Amino acid sequence: MNSTDSPVTVIGLGLMGQALAGAFLKAGHPTTVWNRTAAKAGQLVSQGARLAPTLCTALAPGSLTIVCVTDYSAVRELLGADDVDLDGTTLVNLTSGSSAQARETAEWAERRGARYLDGAVMAIPSTIGTEEAVILHSGPQADFEAHRSTLGALGTVTHLGADHGLASLYDVAGLTMMWSVLNAWLQGTALLRTAGVDAATYAPFAQQLATGVAAWLPGYAQQIDNNSFPAEVAALETEARTMEHLIEESEALGVNAELPRLIKAMADRAIAAGHGAEQYPVLIGEFSRPQTN
Amino acid sequence: MNSTDSPVTVIGLGLMGQALAGAFLKAGHPTTVWNRTAAKAGQLVSQGARLAPTLCTALAPGSLTIVCVTDYSAVRELLGADDVDLDGTTLVNLTSGSSAQARETAEWAERRGARYLDGAVMAIPSTIGTEEAVILHSGPQADFEAHRSTLGALGTVTHLGADHGLASLYDVAGLTMMWSVLNAWLQGTALLRTAGVDAATYAPFAQQLATGVAAWLPGYAQQIDNNSFPAEVAALETEARTMEHLIEESEALGVNAELPRLIKAMADRAIAAGHGAEQYPVLIGEFSRPQTN
Repeated sequence: MNSTDSPVTVIGLGLMGQALAGAFLKAGHPTTVWNRTAAKAGQLVSQGARLAPTLCTALAPGSLTIVCVTDYSAVRELLGADDVDLDGTTLVNLTSGSSAQARETAEWAERRGARYLDGAVMAIPSTIGTEEAVILHSGPQADFEAHRSTLGALGTVTHLGADHGLASLYDVAGLTMMWSVLNAWLQGTALLRTAGVDAATYAPFAQQLATGVAAWLPGYAQQIDNNSFPAEVAALETEARTMEHLIEESEALGVNAELPRLIKAMADRAIAAGHGAEQYPVLIGEFSRPQTN
Repeated sequence: MNSTDSPVTVIGLGLMGQALAGAFLKAGHPTTVWNRTAAKAGQLVSQGARLAPTLCTALAPGSLTIVCVTDYSAVRELLGADDVDLDGTTLVNLTSGSSAQARETAEWAERRGARYLDGAVMAIPSTIGTEEAVILHSGPQADFEAHRSTLGALGTVTHLGADHGLASLYDVAGLTMMWSVLNAWLQGTALLRTAGVDAATYAPFAQQLATGVAAWLPGYAQQIDNNSFPAEVAALETEARTMEHLIEESEALGVNAELPRLIKAMADRAIAAGHGAEQYPVLIGEFSRPQTN
């Protein structure tokens, strides 16, 4: 079933669902679609999709079904209807949700006889069907491998592990990185604009810095996994003095200082806990527990 | 004066000052050193440095003098002594400080007849003298160009512009990026460790994400410089819903949620100001002004 004639069903035709179905069609897969509002299928049908009149007729035993709807409640409501038979189907749920919802829904689907993979789309609709679109999957590896070739029509597909919660966790972890790089760049841009430096002048510098620091992560990860944080580069207490300077500079220039203050607060807490002579990744202790004041 | 026989003086022999003087010696420059505590010069003298008995004899008209001491007060105290003649010297001040201190010290030094460049060392002592060590300079371009070749013995040297405050601003902006990438990685690592994923497994994914997002910055910078933020990729209000989900996931898993909450707070403020349908870089407005609650 790895050839381009293996059929696939797409449930949910929002912008992302339409992009997913379109990519399957383009790759030559017989594609069945269903949406609560059938009108959204118009363009896909003109491209060769089969519009299932009801959800229960959209699914078939042994078939691969992609689900991409509003939230996990909608998944359960739609697929839990009395006339829907999940037995023997493989569901790939690309709906956004938490790791707990992914694990619960996996159990729920498996009880109903389905094979279940949870996924996360780290891409915007316009890139679906290109290498640029990264789509993460978690759940039984055999179920992923059985459909890897078909799923590959959507973009760069990856299997993270058997735990159904992983796709969702990697997704939010990755988004945290995205927003953090953007915020750090905005903070720097705000500082430099006070000196008349435009954003385009600063951006390549910020890009180079982010890329350079990102290259340290695999090495720093060893410190965390070994639970040993020798100050090979710099001691946390030395960095904390520079963080104070960042706060002062931001305040003096009248730009926002909340991000600088959070950076210092996390470091100060680790120093207060006795880690001042250790290296930055020792902060994993603070990031791993709720704020305690 | 661009050959390796151009003399150079290094004032301040902390770990960084010693590394700077060592790199000049290694590149063949006649190197004079001075430190309040002369004993710190021992190793450099054994490598061929000349130890000046007093600060005033360390400087010579037309010479290049690198200053790397504790803070800007120390710079003024040392170089402001009655017997110190700055007339005709070029000072490159690599001491850490604020952009305002850099500008003030430039004026002060220029009034005393010196040429003045302010600099920031974005490197640790062990990398000084290698390409990896990035050293930023700001001040009159002609003064930088006159000594570029000599300064090049220290690492990758860059001139940012005539405003003496720029080196300091780029420095703190770059450090903000560094700490932010590390914090985002720690947040993600903390989330994934709850599912038994070790830091080394997650690190390459985080690295790839950071590098990928960094590549967007030059394009996003155009939105800021044009003050126009069309939602080509995603609208801020859509992203804010996912931020809420990140907070919930962090709280549910018992990991720290302060970074997620700050990410959302900044976005919420921009949305409240009417920018929900625009794209992320519109947050420059929030980053450019103090918190207003």
